[in-house]
Amino acid sequence: MSKDKGNAMRSDRRRLLAGSGLMAVGILSAPAVVRAETRRRWRMATSWPRNLPGPGISAQRLADRIGAASGGRLVIDVFAAGEIVPAFEVFDAVAGGVVEMAHTAAFYWQGKMPAAVFFTSVPFGLGPIEHLAWIEIGGGQALWDELYAPSGVRAFLAGNTGPSMGGWFRRAIDSPDDLNGLRIRVQGLGGEVFRRLGATPVTLPPGEIATSLSTGAIDAVEFLAPSSDLALGLHRATQLYYAPGFNKPNGAGECLISLKAWNDLPDDLRAIVRDACRAEHAEALADAARLNGEALKVLVERHGVRTPLFPKPVLDAARDAAGDILASIAATSPLAGRIAQSYAAAQEGGRAWAGLAAGMAAALATH
Amino acid sequence: MSKDKGNAMRSDRRRLLAGSGLMAVGILSAPAVVRAETRRRWRMATSWPRNLPGPGISAQRLADRIGAASGGRLVIDVFAAGEIVPAFEVFDAVAGGVVEMAHTAAFYWQGKMPAAVFFTSVPFGLGPIEHLAWIEIGGGQALWDELYAPSGVRAFLAGNTGPSMGGWFRRAIDSPDDLNGLRIRVQGLGGEVFRRLGATPVTLPPGEIATSLSTGAIDAVEFLAPSSDLALGLHRATQLYYAPGFNKPNGAGECLISLKAWNDLPDDLRAIVRDACRAEHAEALADAARLNGEALKVLVERHGVRTPLFPKPVLDAARDAAGDILASIAATSPLAGRIAQSYAAAQEGGRAWAGLAAGMAAALATH
Repeated sequence: MSKDKGNAMRSDRRRLLAGSGLMAVGILSAPAVVRAETRRRWRMATSWPRNLPGPGISAQRLADRIGAASGGRLVIDVFAAGEIVPAFEVFDAVAGGVVEMAHTAAFYWQGKMPAAVFFTSVPFGLGPIEHLAWIEIGGGQALWDELYAPSGVRAFLAGNTGPSMGGWFRRAIDSPDDLNGLRIRVQGLGGEVFRRLGATPVTLPPGEIATSLSTGAIDAVEFLAPSSDLALGLHRATQLYYAPGFNKPNGAGECLISLKAWNDLPDDLRAIVRDACRAEHAEALADAARLNGEALKVLVERHGVRTPLFPKPVLDAARDAAGDILASIAATSPLAGRIAQSYAAAQEGGRAWAGLAAGMAAALATH
Repeated sequence: MSKDKGNAMRSDRRRLLAGSGLMAVGILSAPAVVRAETRRRWRMATSWPRNLPGPGISAQRLADRIGAASGGRLVIDVFAAGEIVPAFEVFDAVAGGVVEMAHTAAFYWQGKMPAAVFFTSVPFGLGPIEHLAWIEIGGGQALWDELYAPSGVRAFLAGNTGPSMGGWFRRAIDSPDDLNGLRIRVQGLGGEVFRRLGATPVTLPPGEIATSLSTGAIDAVEFLAPSSDLALGLHRATQLYYAPGFNKPNGAGECLISLKAWNDLPDDLRAIVRDACRAEHAEALADAARLNGEALKVLVERHGVRTPLFPKPVLDAARDAAGDILASIAATSPLAGRIAQSYAAAQEGGRAWAGLAAGMAAALATH
């Protein structure tokens, strides 16, 4: 699509030149065109509290980018979760025309579309850059479009909280047996992975997690990454903070847009929205790296937190469980099967380099 | 800056609303404004052959993005290296007003501004996402602006070829002693690192590298990463392809813009250019991940290439040498000192998480 646009641009440019006969550098003529402008105002529902570090900041920054780049021709008003619709109803709000846009994450829609989870993160799945490559170059965007089109919605990557940690454990995990009977607070597909490993997944709202871990009501917590986990105070309950976060190796955010509103946009505003989403995905990822860097330093240096890797037999058992779960998602529909296949192909094609590049970065960062 | 713009946008929006009294969703009114448009046409000189995989593609895609998002109000014509000015004179061409824009890499300017190298990559330096965080959030952009402002130029990140490999070696490197007397083709600061380790850096144009390695005229080659190295045919000379590429852990590309041309742009076009640069940086990085993934698979599976890590004593010796070299760059001017200090602070703040996140990705990719 970006290539097609490029070609269209180039031929427009040729026509423009042929018409004007101008070859000068800089300003062609001022003013060359007087154009009637349509001003648009969209509402963006989000799944986050206003300015929540990470995704909430991303939503507002995305709106600001579009407003600035469009010179005010497309103004986006951002609404926190619950202001127009509840956090997990923003997809339906876009589909139903209640709002034109939303900032959220695809895995919230796995209840109605199981394969939606592939567009956020799946256990043992793609990392942030590899996921971006799948979406932009590897066929992911077209499948995402196909999945949401029946609902009258399209989606773009528009934020990323980065990879997650494995979680906080009250006692060491030395073998897969140590997961037996373990009560762990965990959400989404990760809960099913832990269930298959003999643990008992527990659902708890964020406000109750730290206390439950401190009292021993639960044995472990899989939450997110250092910056959010530090804010939750989980280090006061235990200093064992395992890696890797095999259940969420990526944290892609999505911008949802009503197809009706999208189709009504002129080409230049579409290009602005797309590049604003891309820019925000990148900046959010950089932001997350910085915030997690600062938080991990505090956790390790001030609170004595350790970050051991899960033993290989634990990772192998979890990987097997994850494979079964993804296969069952792939079996839910022909489209889900194609999404799973395309995702697996992207992962297989990039695995060796992803592993080597990561190993190189690890070797350079450690000394 | 993006925050300031956001604030400005929001107050514009409030004024717009107050004036119109409209609270409706979607199109406010059509047309609301009739605006005279100035069409601009810029020339972009590049340091690459036209459509060179990686940077050449990035340059054209950046131009296309800006053309599309501006609706043709800012059209960028892309010129290959040598068409207007030679590859390594594009900075001077922008500074001198010969062209408005260039797509290149900052380390080419280290002859006149030694600290410019920090804005591409330095030995044992930041990885791509951490570098982006330094530029966008950690104060890097302001220092980059300060470095180039006396030349009448400003720069944005606008491409990234990712981390490099350590290079191709005809014999195993088991200890720092094995580097003694080694003739290695290597460029830039990496050459100085190898020189301090007792090796002899050799300069060779790309067309002569593979033959020289095959005949044993040289013992090793540090070039780039799998996709470009495969194209060069280095695997026909040796199958020992070392990691990590400690001399180039990042491959940031830069977009240069004449300050005069930049100052002449209205705010919306500036926002478009900035987000286009950010989008291109991200897409280039994703592209590189995919191309390197495909190439590494071919190298390993079809050509029997192995990718050992340098032994830790070699990395430690190289890190010490790199530290001395960076210190000597920092000593070249007060600004260079501040750049080196800011870079080191970003690296120190993010090191623990960068290492852990990389270790997690490596653990997940390997099985």
